[in-house]
Amino acid sequence: MTQDADYERSMRRALDLAGNGPATGVNPRVGCIILGADGETLAEGWHRGAGTPHAEVDALSKLPAGGARGATAVVTLEPCNHTGRTSPCSVALLDAGISRVVYAVADPGERSSGGAERLRAAGVAIQGGVLAEEATAFLADWLFAAGLGRPFVTVKWASSLDGRAAAADGSSQWITGPEARQDVHRRRAQADAIVVGTGTVLADDPALTARDADGGLLPGQPIPVVLGTRPIPAGSAVLSHPQAPLFFDGSDLGAVLGDLHERGIRRVFVEGGPTLASAFVAAGLADEYLIYLAPTLLGGGRLALNDIGVQGIAEQRRLAITHLDRLGDDILVIARPLERNDHVHRNH
Amino acid sequence: MTQDADYERSMRRALDLAGNGPATGVNPRVGCIILGADGETLAEGWHRGAGTPHAEVDALSKLPAGGARGATAVVTLEPCNHTGRTSPCSVALLDAGISRVVYAVADPGERSSGGAERLRAAGVAIQGGVLAEEATAFLADWLFAAGLGRPFVTVKWASSLDGRAAAADGSSQWITGPEARQDVHRRRAQADAIVVGTGTVLADDPALTARDADGGLLPGQPIPVVLGTRPIPAGSAVLSHPQAPLFFDGSDLGAVLGDLHERGIRRVFVEGGPTLASAFVAAGLADEYLIYLAPTLLGGGRLALNDIGVQGIAEQRRLAITHLDRLGDDILVIARPLERNDHVHRNH
Ligand SMILES: NC(=O)c1ccc[n+]([C@@H]2O[C@H](COP(=O)([O-])OP(=O)(O)OC[C@H]3O[C@@H](n4cnc5c(N)ncnc54)[C@H](OP(=O)(O)O)[C@@H]3O)[C@@H](O)[C@H]2O)c1
Ligand SMILES: NC(=O)c1ccc[n+]([C@@H]2O[C@H](COP(=O)([O-])OP(=O)(O)OC[C@H]3O[C@@H](n4cnc5c(N)ncnc54)[C@H](OP(=O)(O)O)[C@@H]3O)[C@@H](O)[C@H]2O)c1
Repeated sequence: MTQDADYERSMRRALDLAGNGPATGVNPRVGCIILGADGETLAEGWHRGAGTPHAEVDALSKLPAGGARGATAVVTLEPCNHTGRTSPCSVALLDAGISRVVYAVADPGERSSGGAERLRAAGVAIQGGVLAEEATAFLADWLFAAGLGRPFVTVKWASSLDGRAAAADGSSQWITGPEARQDVHRRRAQADAIVVGTGTVLADDPALTARDADGGLLPGQPIPVVLGTRPIPAGSAVLSHPQAPLFFDGSDLGAVLGDLHERGIRRVFVEGGPTLASAFVAAGLADEYLIYLAPTLLGGGRLALNDIGVQGIAEQRRLAITHLDRLGDDILVIARPLERNDHVHRNH
Repeated sequence: MTQDADYERSMRRALDLAGNGPATGVNPRVGCIILGADGETLAEGWHRGAGTPHAEVDALSKLPAGGARGATAVVTLEPCNHTGRTSPCSVALLDAGISRVVYAVADPGERSSGGAERLRAAGVAIQGGVLAEEATAFLADWLFAAGLGRPFVTVKWASSLDGRAAAADGSSQWITGPEARQDVHRRRAQADAIVVGTGTVLADDPALTARDADGGLLPGQPIPVVLGTRPIPAGSAVLSHPQAPLFFDGSDLGAVLGDLHERGIRRVFVEGGPTLASAFVAAGLADEYLIYLAPTLLGGGRLALNDIGVQGIAEQRRLAITHLDRLGDDILVIARPLERNDHVHRNH
């Protein structure tokens, strides 16, 4: 009993440590605690992004040789079994003489899973599922991408309360307020790529950078991705983005996502416009919605979402609202598809 | 100081008592407390609706003859000075020998105001504005109707998060859940009239009654009002409404509201459909919005609001959100026009 409480406490701390890592990139954010025989913390570690030591190795590196013999490793994700730029954590834990591994979430990766099995076969005591719910929520988009073989897709739009993205003449400045716009930039910075259609590039010439309130660049900059067949002007702002933009015709959105996944992109932020957003929704490729609702009415024909292939009410795209809040004068609704399996296209 | 605190305490109690009265009808909800020389409560009263004694008279009636001599009356609305079905409260208070009147909000009525003046002229000490903010909020729609000479208009619609009232083929069953639908019925019961267009009657054949969760009639039933030129079928459900329906062609919405006001209607609930709701918004005749947002996406052309006369973003109808909440799976947004004076049409 006391030991289980120790593991939960350590797992919570390991999740905190994991949060120090970068939210973007190919690798998951992982934290690890090494516990001694009396449940005391011997060392802590976390993963700092692709090409750097995994959390387990980071924690072990802080102990003298032999210092982890007989100890317990508490780690937020099942230790990997995959030789990439680093050697498998399962082997590192065995080599260090760890006698028990406690983890939260199983590794869903096709090549990286099997670490727990390997450790168990070598006589290490294994306990999975500790704080599984918190850890799963923490890793949601990474787990999702690992399971589907494509990036996790967030579709964002801003509209009036009656669902319009702009007034009849196309003007849309200042629909949402500064708090909502700043929130968009913060979330952009947590994505690996930001996707727009040529329509938006041609109409708005957006920079597609993630900026702070003063217009300065935030530390994380998503790769801009432009979809469409129309050429964009040589002077377009997106061409000066700190990350080189990627271009696709967009005729097969699943293929685009597969290509982005191959490039190590795990979190995609689709910022519109309405035609492209509708295409992602219609294709069942929207995993999360960020809907900013401004307290205004516009009427007219400039909708934030166009046709999404729903004919009758039976085909409606039901969502589960995960977050509802005021942002300045605006409302932010975050939602996910309710019946994911009906709509999601798998890439593998 | 202590006396002021006594007055505030009594005013709060008077507001509670006022809440016992009916929310519908021509008359405001008013409460009254009679305080003795030491601030002790001698009697309490409230108004039970048109044709019954006003709050002041109700309170005085609970005292023996002479029992209010030299006492203080704390009342939520300035005592009326108008002889209607009852004689003016100002006179009743003078006759009872009240020596001080404390009230919250001035009476904005053209014929009923002047009570405080009359009492002051007769030597009664007058103190207005106690808890004015709470009392004004409590009486908001009645004060509004009294000031404008037309009913307070609430426009309600239910839509998907992308602003659709129905799927492309017109089907709309179960967009919102039972909690939201029950909330609509509760609010209908607080209105004097419920207004729809012929389009809704012909498409849905709604009963337009206010019902509880089991389908039973709630105590308050708004008068159904149908606007439009098309005839409605002889067997339409609205023709069996407990209140006889009213019919107007709807070509002049201001005139319709003026007529309803003449009939004693102070709170109007506009329930659609989209064409009629848009007409009320376009005419600047929506004083409050009740927007039920269901967690679903529909796309397509069946919008909850159509054209409202906004061409450019400068003409947008900005709202102030006064309430945001979850209702079951749905979201309820209550909002009011931000710049009322720009849009409101006055009837007198
Ligand atoms: N309120 C908001 O949140 C928001 C956000 C962004 C933009 N906007 C506004 O939206 C307007 C632009 O709207 P839009 O709908 O024309 O822009 P869009 O959605 O950015 O671009 C549409 C274009 O995307 C390309 N595309 C690539 N793959 C596609 C696919 N699978 N399906 C459909 N289209 C695909 C097509 O380009 P080709 O024709 O070149 O092949 C299509 O014409 C601007 O006025 C902008 O201000 C609003
Ligand atoms: N989601 C919701 O909250 C909600 C609520 C109600 C209804 N609905 C749906 O809405 C659909 C019906 O839509 P609708 O737009 O046809 O119905 P509607 O707005 O109820 O009726 C439109 C009709 O109202 C009459 N009208 C009277 N005065 C008017 C004025 N000043 N301006 C414009 N019209 C005026 C006109 O009738 P005449 O042509 O006879 O002159 C007009 O054709 C139904 O499918 C119903 O299910 C949805």
